[in-house]
Amino acid sequence: MKIDIYAAHNSVQEKELKDRTVVVIDVFRATTTIITALHNGCREVIPVAGIEEAIAFSRNYDKNAFLLGGERNTHKIDGFDLSNSPSEYTRQTVEGRTILLTTTNGTKAVRKTHEAKEVLIAGFVNVDAIAEYLAKLSDDVTFVCAGTEGKFSLEDILAVGAILSNLKSMGREITFDDLGFVCVHMYEIYRTDIKEFLKGTNHYKRLVIEKLENDIDVCLDVNSIPAVPSYKDGVIRLNAKAH
Amino acid sequence: MKIDIYAAHNSVQEKELKDRTVVVIDVFRATTTIITALHNGCREVIPVAGIEEAIAFSRNYDKNAFLLGGERNTHKIDGFDLSNSPSEYTRQTVEGRTILLTTTNGTKAVRKTHEAKEVLIAGFVNVDAIAEYLAKLSDDVTFVCAGTEGKFSLEDILAVGAILSNLKSMGREITFDDLGFVCVHMYEIYRTDIKEFLKGTNHYKRLVIEKLENDIDVCLDVNSIPAVPSYKDGVIRLNAKAH
Repeated sequence: MKIDIYAAHNSVQEKELKDRTVVVIDVFRATTTIITALHNGCREVIPVAGIEEAIAFSRNYDKNAFLLGGERNTHKIDGFDLSNSPSEYTRQTVEGRTILLTTTNGTKAVRKTHEAKEVLIAGFVNVDAIAEYLAKLSDDVTFVCAGTEGKFSLEDILAVGAILSNLKSMGREITFDDLGFVCVHMYEIYRTDIKEFLKGTNHYKRLVIEKLENDIDVCLDVNSIPAVPSYKDGVIRLNAKAH
Repeated sequence: MKIDIYAAHNSVQEKELKDRTVVVIDVFRATTTIITALHNGCREVIPVAGIEEAIAFSRNYDKNAFLLGGERNTHKIDGFDLSNSPSEYTRQTVEGRTILLTTTNGTKAVRKTHEAKEVLIAGFVNVDAIAEYLAKLSDDVTFVCAGTEGKFSLEDILAVGAILSNLKSMGREITFDDLGFVCVHMYEIYRTDIKEFLKGTNHYKRLVIEKLENDIDVCLDVNSIPAVPSYKDGVIRLNAKAH
């Protein structure tokens, strides 16, 4: 199994993902929010590029059937029901509903994969579930990290490392480029205290400034949600083959 | 001092480097070759984009005044005097001569900086000299790693880490993004055995396959050359302020 990794969504072109098996990761916070919402019984998550598009899209739904969720630069969007905090996406709030989600990086990363063969949504909360799913495939895998403002985000890199490290420990023979090497090494060194290690990094510090430290704890709660969401035909649902 | 890092030359646009202080790194092997040639008394190194351009350029020089050097995909170019092995650039061969150099990634990375304020050429062989030079500046610094085929190359990342680690130990207050964090951590963990650590990486393995293991040793000979080359007006020479 050959592994390719892109550290930020804008370093990859849609055509490079065509017909590939892709894993999208935005630990802080979009993919963690998506996994949480689906685990709590929401019907589906539709990643939407822009705020206007989300509002226009919502007109197709009965008012009680959907929720508008998302953020711009970590802040809730005016007129939206929910921000991008996974802890807002409780069963009580989301069960049976469709969520239209738009975030600064994460939903853009997901939408870039629309020509891929299969797209999985990962965070620290489901690394084992994702690794177990991938271990059964014969395909090569491309990881697309959301990144932050086009740059490397260390929490995403460590989550890729966690999945690759799991695949290795399951006996899968995997080959990867130098970035994969970094992912696995960094994860294996810091796995016992990921939060402490991330404290010096930029996205972490920004979430602390915005008083979103609870979100950090939720997003770094490794394997708290054994779910495998898939993106297909513009919609994210729990993967039928995995559940 | 704010530090920005690009892991591969094709992830940065020329305009992003305009008026910046830039350090270009291609450990395996272009920048190591350039540093070696200048240290051994070559007059100047002119990075040239293409093979045809190098040949056309050479017509401006007296036949004994210049040498054509470079590689494509690690192989010497037909009709050229030298390949991209630093050990070929001995004093006997290069002293007093102009070298026209074209390589797959390194010379492209250098040429991308032509609108920068100041451009330094670094490898493991001169990390301390580069760090000492940078420590005297008040400017922010951008590192441009050559990368390999547009991807992250770990030997370049570790060399950035060595320079940043040196700057820190000299008491310079530096801030960097998550990629900088990775550079410093990886270097500080593996500094005592860089060669052993790099053995699993792609570029290293390719050089071994090409029987260029001696080049690996030369390129990883930390601080063997206390030189600071600068690129200005299309030409690389030893930096007058540093020497």
